[in-house]
Amino acid sequence: MADTEAKVFHIEILREFSTRVFVHLGVPKSDAMQAADVLASADLRGVDSHGVARLRSYFDMLSMGRINPQPTIELVSSTLSTATVDGDNGLGLVVGPQANRIAMDMAEKAGSGWVSVRNTNHFGIAAYYVLEALERDLIGWAMTNSTKMVAPLWGAERMLGTNPISIAFPGKEEPPIVIDIATCAVAYGKIEMARRKGESIPSGWGIDSAGLVTTDPDAVVAGGALLPLGSDRERGGHKGYALAIMVDMLSGVLSGANWGPFAPPFALRHEIPTRSVGKGIGHFFGAIRIDGFREVDSFKRQVDDYIRVFRATKPAPGTTGPLIPGDPERQAEQLRRERGVPLILPIVGDLRDISAKTGIPFD
Amino acid sequence: MADTEAKVFHIEILREFSTRVFVHLGVPKSDAMQAADVLASADLRGVDSHGVARLRSYFDMLSMGRINPQPTIELVSSTLSTATVDGDNGLGLVVGPQANRIAMDMAEKAGSGWVSVRNTNHFGIAAYYVLEALERDLIGWAMTNSTKMVAPLWGAERMLGTNPISIAFPGKEEPPIVIDIATCAVAYGKIEMARRKGESIPSGWGIDSAGLVTTDPDAVVAGGALLPLGSDRERGGHKGYALAIMVDMLSGVLSGANWGPFAPPFALRHEIPTRSVGKGIGHFFGAIRIDGFREVDSFKRQVDDYIRVFRATKPAPGTTGPLIPGDPERQAEQLRRERGVPLILPIVGDLRDISAKTGIPFD
Repeated sequence: MADTEAKVFHIEILREFSTRVFVHLGVPKSDAMQAADVLASADLRGVDSHGVARLRSYFDMLSMGRINPQPTIELVSSTLSTATVDGDNGLGLVVGPQANRIAMDMAEKAGSGWVSVRNTNHFGIAAYYVLEALERDLIGWAMTNSTKMVAPLWGAERMLGTNPISIAFPGKEEPPIVIDIATCAVAYGKIEMARRKGESIPSGWGIDSAGLVTTDPDAVVAGGALLPLGSDRERGGHKGYALAIMVDMLSGVLSGANWGPFAPPFALRHEIPTRSVGKGIGHFFGAIRIDGFREVDSFKRQVDDYIRVFRATKPAPGTTGPLIPGDPERQAEQLRRERGVPLILPIVGDLRDISAKTGIPFD
Repeated sequence: MADTEAKVFHIEILREFSTRVFVHLGVPKSDAMQAADVLASADLRGVDSHGVARLRSYFDMLSMGRINPQPTIELVSSTLSTATVDGDNGLGLVVGPQANRIAMDMAEKAGSGWVSVRNTNHFGIAAYYVLEALERDLIGWAMTNSTKMVAPLWGAERMLGTNPISIAFPGKEEPPIVIDIATCAVAYGKIEMARRKGESIPSGWGIDSAGLVTTDPDAVVAGGALLPLGSDRERGGHKGYALAIMVDMLSGVLSGANWGPFAPPFALRHEIPTRSVGKGIGHFFGAIRIDGFREVDSFKRQVDDYIRVFRATKPAPGTTGPLIPGDPERQAEQLRRERGVPLILPIVGDLRDISAKTGIPFD
């Protein structure tokens, strides 16, 4: 089908275009570059749903005044190793990196730093933040809540976001272990892809509007919901649900943001919740100093050993054996830096439309 | 079958017996009481596999000198908000609570406290530690690595423990949200139970010794492995695998304990790993002060609201609607405090055997 065809762009073309679009919408240059960098990171790492594919939503939300292009990001409260940050309804792509820096700076002084953020918006890929921490020999954590998409186990409606958890550990000779996982069974994008292709989805991905497990992607989209990681009670669906609550508590409730079904949408096509229980959505960042626990070099050498031991696991039949978290994204990045980023035609169409509306050349 | 019959004991009988057994084995009285308290907490909360059912293993390991009854628990390194603790090969039931107190004390001074522990042993239920934190208006985290039981996704052998994650959030009028989840699809105990009953297990719980998904519990026990949360690639098995690595890194690698397939066993029936990469197993405790982020009372009222909103979720057909994490354990505790703790006959037999060997009366 037409929309699975792709056109390939050099990452710097996409970065430049995003930056100029943000500036056009009133975002200060340095913030625009920061925001574009988070998007570029997603496009490079193969997380297509979180890169320039989202520029359309940011464009819409900024154009309509639903996101503040020039936020005054404030520290609301703090201790030696914790803080609450108010993002003043700025782009999550700008608020997130700043809050993450606060966590990292605290870690360098106090051993660890933990920042809960309210009044913010979609922050891109969670892995971006933990990769920043690696640059400073810190173990970084990033979480965020988001618009409702996922049913609690035994629920028949959307109540939780896909609420990702990211954390990374540096190796010495080996590349880092980079974990970045949503707490639902599968990404919403996979439901949409099956729908476009007219294929059914596996049992365990989603429910229909009545709350019954379905293999029809249309039923998930039309009033259904994603299922939490673990899918059903028998296979641990209560665990994915619990992890989604954990992320929501740390990101949303602890900071004073909205939580659960009240998290505001990141795109115009989503409905606005009927109730507000806080400000914007919430993020949670953590950073811990490795040398607060053990000598950095010996830690990294153990991580190398760990990676090698796990790569040497006896493979399950029909597989290449276990991957290390972060492998697929790193491979995507190597390939895309060389050969460019493929964008499906509907996304190219969105970007051309933004180009037409702003006068910023594209393509 | 005989071993699904149960005999009921008052919790104080079990607590007293455990305490006296630990003392008999050379554990100082206050440590013995502490250890028995962790076991009693599991028995009350319905986590039968982690209560006095484990006393036999602790008895064996202490009797054979594989656990140190009188450890000198030491702070190896620290910053304002982080520390590494060496448990001197003591009971995890003693080392864990002490390390957790260090984390909580640090949190009260520095806003948060994070303690990675090496040279320790099985610490009981993870929820015990985060419930302690709730008493001090802290959000507590507890993790531990453990003997290999779980295959990495696409692996055909045991490489990881069941590596649980626990965290709790206090309500004001509502009971707390208490999350305590293993990062595998199902507890090993459920495989054993199916085996005793001669029943098959659902697809997604485990693999056989060739690495193929099996519904035969004997095949999992005989050289097979549990599967990570998510079970297979399609349903997010790479996510459960990644979470197990996260726990292993924070508990094992960061502290200098053994990790992955090298984590030593907690019972004589498990093989001793061929390689040692650190000391004992590892735990990880965290504590954060709620009032470092927002006023405690307003946080608790939001948690109440959260719980009520989630309880009001439209139920999936054939269910009572979503539970709140911690509900089943709290209900078990209410029931068991009133009516006693049911123990299956093989466990009663183990305790009688310990009684015969030690002269400590039981029953």
